[in-house]
Amino acid sequence: MKNMIIASTSTIYGSGYLDYILEELQSHFKNVNTVLFVPYARPGGISHDDYTNKAKDAFSKINIEVEGIHTFKNTAKAIAEAEAIFVGGGNTFVLVSQLYRINAMQPLVDAVNNGTPYLGTSAGSNICGLTMNTTNDMPIVYPPSFKTLGLVPFNINPHYLDPISDSEHMGETRETRIKEFLSYNTQPVVGLREGSWLHVNDNSIILKGNLSARIFKHNQAPYEIETGSELQGLK
Amino acid sequence: MKNMIIASTSTIYGSGYLDYILEELQSHFKNVNTVLFVPYARPGGISHDDYTNKAKDAFSKINIEVEGIHTFKNTAKAIAEAEAIFVGGGNTFVLVSQLYRINAMQPLVDAVNNGTPYLGTSAGSNICGLTMNTTNDMPIVYPPSFKTLGLVPFNINPHYLDPISDSEHMGETRETRIKEFLSYNTQPVVGLREGSWLHVNDNSIILKGNLSARIFKHNQAPYEIETGSELQGLK
Repeated sequence: MKNMIIASTSTIYGSGYLDYILEELQSHFKNVNTVLFVPYARPGGISHDDYTNKAKDAFSKINIEVEGIHTFKNTAKAIAEAEAIFVGGGNTFVLVSQLYRINAMQPLVDAVNNGTPYLGTSAGSNICGLTMNTTNDMPIVYPPSFKTLGLVPFNINPHYLDPISDSEHMGETRETRIKEFLSYNTQPVVGLREGSWLHVNDNSIILKGNLSARIFKHNQAPYEIETGSELQGLK
Repeated sequence: MKNMIIASTSTIYGSGYLDYILEELQSHFKNVNTVLFVPYARPGGISHDDYTNKAKDAFSKINIEVEGIHTFKNTAKAIAEAEAIFVGGGNTFVLVSQLYRINAMQPLVDAVNNGTPYLGTSAGSNICGLTMNTTNDMPIVYPPSFKTLGLVPFNINPHYLDPISDSEHMGETRETRIKEFLSYNTQPVVGLREGSWLHVNDNSIILKGNLSARIFKHNQAPYEIETGSELQGLK
């Protein structure tokens, strides 16, 4: 009974927070009055309250209330009773460390499997995969594990970035990094470009947005899939 | 009695492996016949033998032999008896995991403190800092700790990259990432641009190469230091 949006980013260039996906969210969160917001990825070290207010501003445009999970005493209960859940972007290491610290991992898995509508952006999308090994974030804190929610049978690479052809920078391209991941791991990786998202509906996983996505598999050349493609068979 | 070169990168745009720094290495490794090479960061998943051969090719130009640490049975003994040590770049998570697995961390610290000349590039430079929390690499494996050699009293960010002014990509800039690190940690970070290196000589740490470096400190605006600057006071 899953019902998830796993988005590459919260914000696309030149528009406001969540603007590009608000119409989709309106139907995704139909009949939802209040979304439980998880601000723990803390982009730029922003406070939980400030980050929650940012989400509130965006959701007010579609008449949905937002409550920060940090304002609840009993996290597991807050998750279990939430009408809908939104895990915001920021730093995946910070997010995962905190989710383990407050024992929120299993409650999140249970809620999504029970049909609670979920939205993840960036770090909040990363954690939907099997592990966080394909995050782009800097490892600024040490989480107890890289294992994440495993709500889709592959890993996510959000903000997927094509190689910049005229770059003189010698750091690895995103594609090189993901290929390195696949020399140590066997699960596929979905490179989600900014403006793309996965819509998970029960056993269906559809690529949405205007762009194609790049699929990386163990011992196989990477390839593109068009928007509208079904990814459920990917494992 | 430290004698180290901590380089941002092995290779600058448009030239071969180590070419830009070979002249410096010739004096750094004066009277050294054989360098012990640590290939464990495995850039692109390259084999230990192939990576060692790459280092051999470069060092042959200055008449120095290279032996891969993976060919020795007793790692600690190989490190202790090495005339000089070179830890190559690649993935810092892979490198640190392997150094812990073979108990090579303390032997490396001891060797450098005893005066064994050291060269690190990229991941091999990252590990000279207090922790690997400021690596740019993808966390493709889970190391037992992010603590590293602590041979300098700060963290290193190799391949330091200035924000790209006309980019429409919404992922974090390097500066944003390092600032996020400093909301959770207090040690300074040295952003080393490609072509720059630190020369550590006993208690002196001098910035070398043509470019300035960017210094990030807790609760302070980042600032530039010119090449030739002394960094020993940075803590």
